[in-house]
Amino acid sequence: MLKYFFTPENVCLIGASTNPDKLGFKILKNLIEGGYKGKIFPVNPKADTILNLKSYKNVLEIPEVCELAIIVIPSELVCDVAEECGKKGIKGLIVISAGFKETGPEGRKKEERLKEIVRKYKMRLIGPNCLGVIDTKNKLNASFASEMPLEGKISFITQSGALGTAILDWAVKENVGLSKFISFGNKADVSEIDLIEEFEDDSDTDVILLYLEGVNDGKKFMEVTKRVSSKKPIIVIKSGKTEKGTKTASSHTGSLSGSDTAFNSAIKQSGVIRANTVEELFDYALIFACQPILKGKNIGIITNAGGPAVMAVDMIEEIGLTLAEFSTETTEKLKNFLPSASNISNPVDILGDAQADRYERAIEFVISDDKVDGIIVILTPQVTTQIKETAECIAKTSKKYNKPVITCFMGGKRVEEGIKILKENKIPNYFSPERAIISLKAMYDYWRNLNEKPKGKVIKFKVEKEKVQEKINYFKNQKINTIGDIEGRGILSLYGINVINSFLAKDENECAEFLKENDGVYVMKLVSPDIIHKTEAGGIKLNITNSEEAKRAFLEIINSAKKYKPDVKIIGVQIQPMIKNGVEVIIGINKDIQFGHLIMFGLGGIYVELLKDVSFRLIPITDIDANNMIDEIKTSKILKGFRNIPKMDIEAIKETLLRVSQLILDFPEIKEMDINPLVVKEKGCTAVDVRFSFEF
Amino acid sequence: MLKYFFTPENVCLIGASTNPDKLGFKILKNLIEGGYKGKIFPVNPKADTILNLKSYKNVLEIPEVCELAIIVIPSELVCDVAEECGKKGIKGLIVISAGFKETGPEGRKKEERLKEIVRKYKMRLIGPNCLGVIDTKNKLNASFASEMPLEGKISFITQSGALGTAILDWAVKENVGLSKFISFGNKADVSEIDLIEEFEDDSDTDVILLYLEGVNDGKKFMEVTKRVSSKKPIIVIKSGKTEKGTKTASSHTGSLSGSDTAFNSAIKQSGVIRANTVEELFDYALIFACQPILKGKNIGIITNAGGPAVMAVDMIEEIGLTLAEFSTETTEKLKNFLPSASNISNPVDILGDAQADRYERAIEFVISDDKVDGIIVILTPQVTTQIKETAECIAKTSKKYNKPVITCFMGGKRVEEGIKILKENKIPNYFSPERAIISLKAMYDYWRNLNEKPKGKVIKFKVEKEKVQEKINYFKNQKINTIGDIEGRGILSLYGINVINSFLAKDENECAEFLKENDGVYVMKLVSPDIIHKTEAGGIKLNITNSEEAKRAFLEIINSAKKYKPDVKIIGVQIQPMIKNGVEVIIGINKDIQFGHLIMFGLGGIYVELLKDVSFRLIPITDIDANNMIDEIKTSKILKGFRNIPKMDIEAIKETLLRVSQLILDFPEIKEMDINPLVVKEKGCTAVDVRFSFEF
Repeated sequence: MLKYFFTPENVCLIGASTNPDKLGFKILKNLIEGGYKGKIFPVNPKADTILNLKSYKNVLEIPEVCELAIIVIPSELVCDVAEECGKKGIKGLIVISAGFKETGPEGRKKEERLKEIVRKYKMRLIGPNCLGVIDTKNKLNASFASEMPLEGKISFITQSGALGTAILDWAVKENVGLSKFISFGNKADVSEIDLIEEFEDDSDTDVILLYLEGVNDGKKFMEVTKRVSSKKPIIVIKSGKTEKGTKTASSHTGSLSGSDTAFNSAIKQSGVIRANTVEELFDYALIFACQPILKGKNIGIITNAGGPAVMAVDMIEEIGLTLAEFSTETTEKLKNFLPSASNISNPVDILGDAQADRYERAIEFVISDDKVDGIIVILTPQVTTQIKETAECIAKTSKKYNKPVITCFMGGKRVEEGIKILKENKIPNYFSPERAIISLKAMYDYWRNLNEKPKGKVIKFKVEKEKVQEKINYFKNQKINTIGDIEGRGILSLYGINVINSFLAKDENECAEFLKENDGVYVMKLVSPDIIHKTEAGGIKLNITNSEEAKRAFLEIINSAKKYKPDVKIIGVQIQPMIKNGVEVIIGINKDIQFGHLIMFGLGGIYVELLKDVSFRLIPITDIDANNMIDEIKTSKILKGFRNIPKMDIEAIKETLLRVSQLILDFPEIKEMDINPLVVKEKGCTAVDVRFSFEF
Repeated sequence: MLKYFFTPENVCLIGASTNPDKLGFKILKNLIEGGYKGKIFPVNPKADTILNLKSYKNVLEIPEVCELAIIVIPSELVCDVAEECGKKGIKGLIVISAGFKETGPEGRKKEERLKEIVRKYKMRLIGPNCLGVIDTKNKLNASFASEMPLEGKISFITQSGALGTAILDWAVKENVGLSKFISFGNKADVSEIDLIEEFEDDSDTDVILLYLEGVNDGKKFMEVTKRVSSKKPIIVIKSGKTEKGTKTASSHTGSLSGSDTAFNSAIKQSGVIRANTVEELFDYALIFACQPILKGKNIGIITNAGGPAVMAVDMIEEIGLTLAEFSTETTEKLKNFLPSASNISNPVDILGDAQADRYERAIEFVISDDKVDGIIVILTPQVTTQIKETAECIAKTSKKYNKPVITCFMGGKRVEEGIKILKENKIPNYFSPERAIISLKAMYDYWRNLNEKPKGKVIKFKVEKEKVQEKINYFKNQKINTIGDIEGRGILSLYGINVINSFLAKDENECAEFLKENDGVYVMKLVSPDIIHKTEAGGIKLNITNSEEAKRAFLEIINSAKKYKPDVKIIGVQIQPMIKNGVEVIIGINKDIQFGHLIMFGLGGIYVELLKDVSFRLIPITDIDANNMIDEIKTSKILKGFRNIPKMDIEAIKETLLRVSQLILDFPEIKEMDINPLVVKEKGCTAVDVRFSFEF
């Protein structure tokens, strides 16, 4: 679809310059020196030739139709030139020039006009305000990056040109091969989503790396990354995680950075791998691009030093991988050839005097063990350590097995030559054991996500959709944007969610009457649109068992409410049966402007607020998502039978989550919702308090 | 005290060799080539000269008394040679040779004999099984490390020789200067504690770096590090954090690795800085060795790229530093000279085309602002970026202010030359903004710890120590190792801790009698040494208000207990007043074999077990420690007035913590203790259930 950005038949550079200090010169030089095989047409109204190429006054003068135009002229001129490009029949524009949306209202207008022109002529546009595009295989350097990286299988998509320069500079120094590099700037047209789709079936791309500051179309992003990440790993780093961070992101980039919760949920649900730092991004990129996938969590360690191995084991425990237990056969083999002071169980310590041959045999024995899924080889540069030879042995052995082998050659100067050999043989070397282990974990998570069985599915329950539609139409017509308990429970009930029985009493006599006719223990609660925290307003009375108590409770509740808020609007008092021996949980909905509705689950009471022990997913959720949401919270053990609290009906919570998800999917005008609490018992669960708000 | 290990007048090398492959040759070569100015005496029974130095048959033959002997001969011969060294009057031994404790019982015996000899002759010993010692200022390379690092102000002490080689190799490559390097191996004599004390007043040591696998004398370690870290930063990395990690540590090093909780508490209470990875160790070392201390939490950022600045801001928020707010004067100054598209508030984005002069002025304005405590300068290698010149400007400006300046020049090849200049000017450069910020945080924590006012003190309450002594003597004589509620509360009470009133009833009639004479609401609890989880055994009855209920409750409790455990030993049933409207907390004691007693605090109920939301300190604790213990737990907000829960008496908890600390200090034979729950109310707190165990 976007092939002409990477393998164009020919290219014109509008704004080519004879001045070596200008970008228009650098880009032309890069195009030529990169080794691009197609024809290059510089465009410059004043020059005849630039860098020995004939230059044209304008695009229309070029004797051929170009597939790709690179534009690097002042922003005021860009739109007119783009119009010419459209007329000429050019397919793709890369607008390097800055001075658009990122500069304020004036620039934003220019950008809007540019977008219109692009649409009009059915062109596609990368940029403006970007670094350009590189395709190493096709030897196209349509950017002003100084050096072209080696050919490789990683494609890198970056929203920040500045970070792009740093990444290219890193790739060049570390000899990391890239397939494609795209800085998409203001993403006036082509976005990260288009590019991910472009690389979905690109045989030159094994790993997609992404630097993002914000996502425009969250739902599409999720849909595409979900599909593509089932074919190849997508690794993303996004800045703007905390509130202050987000503020900076919007003021800096003109991009609307969404709440990180929604973004995080999106990538979790799509199987995208998140890197937390640039370092992690690189670490992950290396292992995914260089090594076969880790198909289990059992890690073997071979080391010539105890300390670093302990650090690796610490990290394995911490992040949820497993220190492999070797088969007796492997242990025997290790025992038979290693010196007696060695540690023959995992981590295998082959001692400080280990030379390359000892490493080689130990690695061979460990990696061929079926109980080992991947290995890390640790080396410290001791006196007799054969650094180069050991690197060669590792390279040789690793090629025989379809399991990841990574290394941690620790140190600086002496280990350099070993690391060079490792790199040449696509063995990622990590500075510390911890980083090596964390990278393996990313791989394991990716594999597990791909192979999780059964796959989750969105369940469709039989519900009374039309009746809810009627109610919501009514609220809309009446301009009612918030509804409380009574109406709220009505809606939930139509979606098959069990709600508490409730009687609304308008005065103390109705209360007394109700208690006369109904046995049992009751709770009485104020119903008022003005008071949210009922307890604080004295709006709740427990353990009501007879008419006398009910009457008194009614009057006390009304009194307290009036004291709490003199002009309070009171609808009445609800009388509900008291539920005993249940655990209170909360299910909530809120809406993210980029990704849509988020559903939240947590244990109720003060702990939600205090510990923020909640889990989130984007709507719609699958049955597996519902399961994971419950499992993810730290307090979920309470629901599973803990001490003298019996096992609660987790299936009922799951079903409620799924039914809520269906409700929100059917009625996206629901902006927020809280079921707080949903009381779970050994059998079943009941929605007690509910609030909805709408966005019509 | 240990001067002769670093600045010996003269040195002998026992086991010097003519064979270039042997350590005995390498060490001699290192001694000579390192530039050591004193006399060197090689000892080898077979050679006449080695490397142009006259060689001696044995130590006794040497015409002078050496201050330091380096021994690198087979372990079987070491003890005899050490004996000769003692006779000769040598003061310090560095035993490089392996084959001691780390190899098993035989080696352990040899090591014990070696220790005896050292004691007998009042020598001191580093090793055995170590890499040796380096003093860069004195140009002493008494190790077999290949290259000598530059002279600097960091002294590095390592328990692992292997990790030592990696660190030296790193220091050489990165041009990081070290003052001293000591690999102390099996620490048969000189330990990390001796070395830390040695560097306490060493003017050549500004920063002490420590790699540990275990600590032998936890209390001494704490005492010394507390004192020394108030003079200079001590940065420690310890392997063996998780359970599996610890297991590996002991099998590998013969060193008994203590529980990490105790170690972590120890360093927290001593003001030692903990690095979690080798990378962090290096990162911290650089900032402490190169930059003035950060004296506040307000960080300024100057950048030529938005994305990385956002990452820095994210991390600042996450770890509890603050993004500085500039004075209006600074903002004005920035506004006046920066291009209009720049961001003039913090982080200051001086745009992608910023050259060195723009960096310089921006840095100057920001760092001179009193509201800024330290700065980080971020640079991405864009087209017009003057990498070298910018590095020079940073170096120049940073020297004018007594505030830390660190950088994050991102990339690889192009930024190399800039980083080189930064290094030469002692500006630490970090690969990622996150690592830079984390390093600043370590500095801030160190500064805050030093300057925390008021200083905490251990408070001594008036207590009935003698009476507790009597009780404990009795338990000891009776060989009673565990005591429950009734005796336990007796002890607490003598230390001024408020305990619940309790009546022990032997039969149902005593229960009935008690309720007849006492009004109120009571709880009844089984008293049995055999049942720990009383609730599960049906051993607790709540809300007892009259004789009838009390009688019935007694019988039911006894019945349930017998069903739960047929041969249960029953002492009786306690009757206690029910405490309402309190919050349950837990105070516990356990004993670490290396560091002694740990005191724990957490919120009671199932949340302690589920969330592990507890804090630890080593005994004795100060009033500030008690404060921090309460503040540290996530659920502590519940105690401070939360929603409709009133503010609880935190002072009473503090006092209880301090009184428990005093009790344990007075009676170290108390091995474990649990007050669970301690019920806190708006005024006061009450110990309800208590258990003690002793180690006589």
